Amino acid sequence: MSFRAHLKVRFGDIDHAGIVYYPRFLHYFHVALEEFFTHVVGVEYHTVINEQRFGLPSVHLEIDFRRPLRFGDAIDVEVRGLELGTTSVTWRYAVWKQDGTLAAEATIVTVSLDMDAFTKRPLPAWLHDKLAAYGAAVAATEPAG
Amino acid sequence: MSFRAHLKVRFGDIDHAGIVYYPRFLHYFHVALEEFFTHVVGVEYHTVINEQRFGLPSVHLEIDFRRPLRFGDAIDVEVRGLELGTTSVTWRYAVWKQDGTLAAEATIVTVSLDMDAFTKRPLPAWLHDKLAAYGAAVAATEPAG
Amino acid sequence: MSFRAHLKVRFGDIDHAGIVYYPRFLHYFHVALEEFFTHVVGVEYHTVINEQRFGLPSVHLEIDFRRPLRFGDAIDVEVRGLELGTTSVTWRYAVWKQDGTLAAEATIVTVSLDMDAFTKRPLPAWLHDKLAAYGAAVAATEPAG
Amino acid sequence: MSFRAHLKVRFGDIDHAGIVYYPRFLHYFHVALEEFFTHVVGVEYHTVINEQRFGLPSVHLEIDFRRPLRFGDAIDVEVRGLELGTTSVTWRYAVWKQDGTLAAEATIVTVSLDMDAFTKRPLPAWLHDKLAAYGAAVAATEPAG
Repeated sequence: MSFRAHLKVRFGDIDHAGIVYYPRFLHYFHVALEEFFTHVVGVEYHTVINEQRFGLPSVHLEIDFRRPLRFGDAIDVEVRGLELGTTSVTWRYAVWKQDGTLAAEATIVTVSLDMDAFTKRPLPAWLHDKLAAYGAAVAATEPAG
Repeated sequence: MSFRAHLKVRFGDIDHAGIVYYPRFLHYFHVALEEFFTHVVGVEYHTVINEQRFGLPSVHLEIDFRRPLRFGDAIDVEVRGLELGTTSVTWRYAVWKQDGTLAAEATIVTVSLDMDAFTKRPLPAWLHDKLAAYGAAVAATEPAG
Repeated sequence: MSFRAHLKVRFGDIDHAGIVYYPRFLHYFHVALEEFFTHVVGVEYHTVINEQRFGLPSVHLEIDFRRPLRFGDAIDVEVRGLELGTTSVTWRYAVWKQDGTLAAEATIVTVSLDMDAFTKRPLPAWLHDKLAAYGAAVAATEPAG
Repeated sequence: MSFRAHLKVRFGDIDHAGIVYYPRFLHYFHVALEEFFTHVVGVEYHTVINEQRFGLPSVHLEIDFRRPLRFGDAIDVEVRGLELGTTSVTWRYAVWKQDGTLAAEATIVTVSLDMDAFTKRPLPAWLHDKLAAYGAAVAATEPAG
């Protein structure tokens, strides 16, 4: 039961080649992260940043672009995996087209950051537990092999 | 001798219609403002905001789109007029294509803002004088009638 | 009963001043236009462009920025007026914050464009009728005076 | 003697955390590619796409974010490596801050695409030779070991 953010490819997301401009995929992943906080974590990401002074900037990412996206495409951005370190969270995303084919797959490593000092800090316990539970749940539903 | 920022239309500025996505013109105007501070005012705009805690957000704007822009177009964004109020600066921009035709014209009213209190404040005297001198200089070179 | 598109201000919509970067408002208006086609006109805007080869680029716009928007704000972009010419559609938008205050108001004049010839053409009758009905309906519900 | 595109971090490139929004790095890499075509290949990238109907979309990328970028930073985007396959070009980029520190490193695999058929095609010989010469030149200047 992985989380999926439902997005639409907008007129302005398109580039000169007539397909989604590739940086836009990273924006989709961030929007999915924001929606994940709202719907799975249960706290808005802007509240986490503004009130708890805690954020999750990216330090490493890998993306495979499988199929181009076009204006009007309805897409699902799935958070299909989560791995936790002491001061990091690794997110595995998939972008699905409405016909069930993959548009992109990504792994994004984020670090747990104190937004005032701009230094690494351990994940807050409440968030660690929420993320660990989600990570375990999606891992349990993955097909073996 | 009005100031012109030289920009290029980038691959990612284009929309599904194959022309520059219209919000991008506002980005071009802001880049021209940043370049104007660097080259005409003589102080980088980020220095003004960060050290003097002073900014110029927009409160009103009007744009006429004359001709579409396409990927690869070399454009000039001209600051062709400036009017000063006590707490406002009105900027008149023109976007020129390389063939000498107009792509867009705009009037943007900005307010002088204290970036900490987020309230209006008078223009700093040093900036008022710089802008007034520029405004007078470009007005003097405009053809009569 | 005017149409309202429900949007959220995203992490990446914010600028160095900590508020929504002003070109982003134009993107919100375009997203509202796309949603208006889906929910009011009953035909997706990408279908109109791709299959009917017809589009509505902007030729003139005016915006008043009333209040800044911040990351996490839930906003409504209302299409609160529509005026039709032979080859133009004028859209009046309002951006509402969740507390019921106005963030921005805009008037955007678009032209009816043949996407192949890139020349003006009359509005297709089916669209003219849909838009005229909407324009009349919202005008009828406006308070007098 | 690797190629470096000189860019400035703009006001609107910044996100709610006060640093460059991470998708913006991908935009910087694309701008560097466009400048590389202009200054190293000697043909504008828009001319290649529009007249030769040939493009280089990304199929895989990896980025390491080393240091955050802030509004006003002057950066160099270096094309520090190039590897050629029959239908692919792999680009290695580095983003340098003015103080000589690394902001980001990336490897982006692009495919040689027929823009009409949207299918892979071999690199045109003229471009293969230009890119091979550049790749060999930068490899030759790399420090041993």
